[in-house]
Amino acid sequence: MAIVKRVVLDVLKPHQPDALEFACELADLGSEYQVDLLVKEVDDKTQTIELTISADNIKFEVIANHIKIMGGAIHSIDEVAVLSSKPSEAEQHS
Amino acid sequence: MAIVKRVVLDVLKPHQPDALEFACELADLGSEYQVDLLVKEVDDKTQTIELTISADNIKFEVIANHIKIMGGAIHSIDEVAVLSSKPSEAEQHS
Amino acid sequence: MAIVKRVVLDVLKPHQPDALEFACELADLGSEYQVDLLVKEVDDKTQTIELTISADNIKFEVIANHIKIMGGAIHSIDEVAVLSSKPSEAEQHS
Amino acid sequence: MAIVKRVVLDVLKPHQPDALEFACELADLGSEYQVDLLVKEVDDKTQTIELTISADNIKFEVIANHIKIMGGAIHSIDEVAVLSSKPSEAEQHS
Amino acid sequence: MAIVKRVVLDVLKPHQPDALEFACELADLGSEYQVDLLVKEVDDKTQTIELTISADNIKFEVIANHIKIMGGAIHSIDEVAVLSSKPSEAEQHS
Amino acid sequence: MAIVKRVVLDVLKPHQPDALEFACELADLGSEYQVDLLVKEVDDKTQTIELTISADNIKFEVIANHIKIMGGAIHSIDEVAVLSSKPSEAEQHS
Amino acid sequence: MAIVKRVVLDVLKPHQPDALEFACELADLGSEYQVDLLVKEVDDKTQTIELTISADNIKFEVIANHIKIMGGAIHSIDEVAVLSSKPSEAEQHS
Repeated sequence: MAIVKRVVLDVLKPHQPDALEFACELADLGSEYQVDLLVKEVDDKTQTIELTISADNIKFEVIANHIKIMGGAIHSIDEVAVLSSKPSEAEQHS
Repeated sequence: MAIVKRVVLDVLKPHQPDALEFACELADLGSEYQVDLLVKEVDDKTQTIELTISADNIKFEVIANHIKIMGGAIHSIDEVAVLSSKPSEAEQHS
Repeated sequence: MAIVKRVVLDVLKPHQPDALEFACELADLGSEYQVDLLVKEVDDKTQTIELTISADNIKFEVIANHIKIMGGAIHSIDEVAVLSSKPSEAEQHS
Repeated sequence: MAIVKRVVLDVLKPHQPDALEFACELADLGSEYQVDLLVKEVDDKTQTIELTISADNIKFEVIANHIKIMGGAIHSIDEVAVLSSKPSEAEQHS
Repeated sequence: MAIVKRVVLDVLKPHQPDALEFACELADLGSEYQVDLLVKEVDDKTQTIELTISADNIKFEVIANHIKIMGGAIHSIDEVAVLSSKPSEAEQHS
Repeated sequence: MAIVKRVVLDVLKPHQPDALEFACELADLGSEYQVDLLVKEVDDKTQTIELTISADNIKFEVIANHIKIMGGAIHSIDEVAVLSSKPSEAEQHS
Repeated sequence: MAIVKRVVLDVLKPHQPDALEFACELADLGSEYQVDLLVKEVDDKTQTIELTISADNIKFEVIANHIKIMGGAIHSIDEVAVLSSKPSEAEQHS
């Protein structure tokens, strides 16, 4: 399976855990995960956030699962950057 | 035939496979393919996505074919960057 | 817990301490803290400011607490950049 | 005659050959030609494209001729970057 | 006290001293001060200017005082960039 | 006389010579002249173009004259970048 | 007196001397002066130009005087960048 380098998610979350805690919990799901969180809309009981997760190799299932555990819902996957997991031709012949 | 370095496609796809899976499958069609996928519109049963595929040498036929297999339709080729496959003059005379 | 690299806060503060003093007090809460303060709105008794705090490792609790001591209120956490505190896989196996 | 480094053309083309094939054919007209093609408008039987051709030394006649052979028409030359073919003064006196 | 690296001030000044003299006088208040002055509005007797002062270590009191001496009034501090004066942890333990 | 490094001209030209030929002829007026030509408006018998000529030392008279010979008219000089022809102080004392 | 590095002036000038000559004359007032001139408005008998003069050390009086000699009038000083003429602290103690 191709390697996921960046995912941009539109997520609806409750006010608690707050934006900082939410981002920290996700970052700690993998090694060298970088999480950028931008609050886009604040409603009575929810916040709409844009989550950008970057890493060398993102385990998306684990991320999606933990968002659900924290009471969040992935509205949409807005952007994806992936790289082929096939070795380059140079490496194939070496 | 000239070497294809980048293609930007406007594609209509069903919700399944989702954006992440869609991009991963395409990336694994060649070595060192990079696939950037941007969801531009979400309708009831479909998503309009912008697909940017970059690589040293893109096999477009294979890409186009696999998009069809996953239920997608290429609306338009929006951008293309290609390079001559002719050797440079320096190389021709060496 | 993940490491906090940058926080962007929307803060309501009284006119005193002024923007400069406010920023300086926050910067001195940790070593190598960089504080950028932008005044966005000025009202009769208050100012709405955008605070961007960057450092290698931000202690958010300490920041939040000191803002309160100076009479300010965090309206919202607008942006967060955090990094996993997990060692990289290379480091785990060494 | 001065050396042509970049030409931006507004071209009307039939749907066939498609954008990718159109660009590839042009790129192969010279060595190290780079062709960027952007589809700007799609009509019933035609596409309006913006063609940017860059190279160390573009043979414009050849390009113009091949566009015609593929059924296209150059609407306008929108941009041109050329360089004097005169040797620099330093080179003239050496 | 934290070190002030940049201050952006909204200042109302009389036409005399003119923008150039005004900036020069401020720059000479410290070593290596850089002063950028932008005239934003010109009224009958006054000019509204945006002053950006950058240096390794700005003495704000001295700046504020001299603006007053030249007949100007600081409308607002619009931006502040400061750095912690605490030594980094590496330096603390050395 | 100061050295002219760049001139941006608004020029009205007939359709013939076309944009490419027009630019090439100007480029060949001096050594290492770079000419960028942008077609801004196309009318019945004329084109309005923006000509940017860059070189180490542009002979403007020669350019202006040749534009006239090709049937063009300089509407306006829109931008000029020149450099003092005085030697730097360091060079004056050496 | 602080060192003037850049001045942006709004100047009203007659059509003669033209933009090119106007800029060249100013550039030759000092060594290594760079003059960028942008024509912003053209009226019946005058042009409004934006003059940006950059150098290591601009003698503003000389510039202002010569603009007057050529029939121009400085409408406003729009931007100024100056640097303290005080030696840095490191240099003071050496």
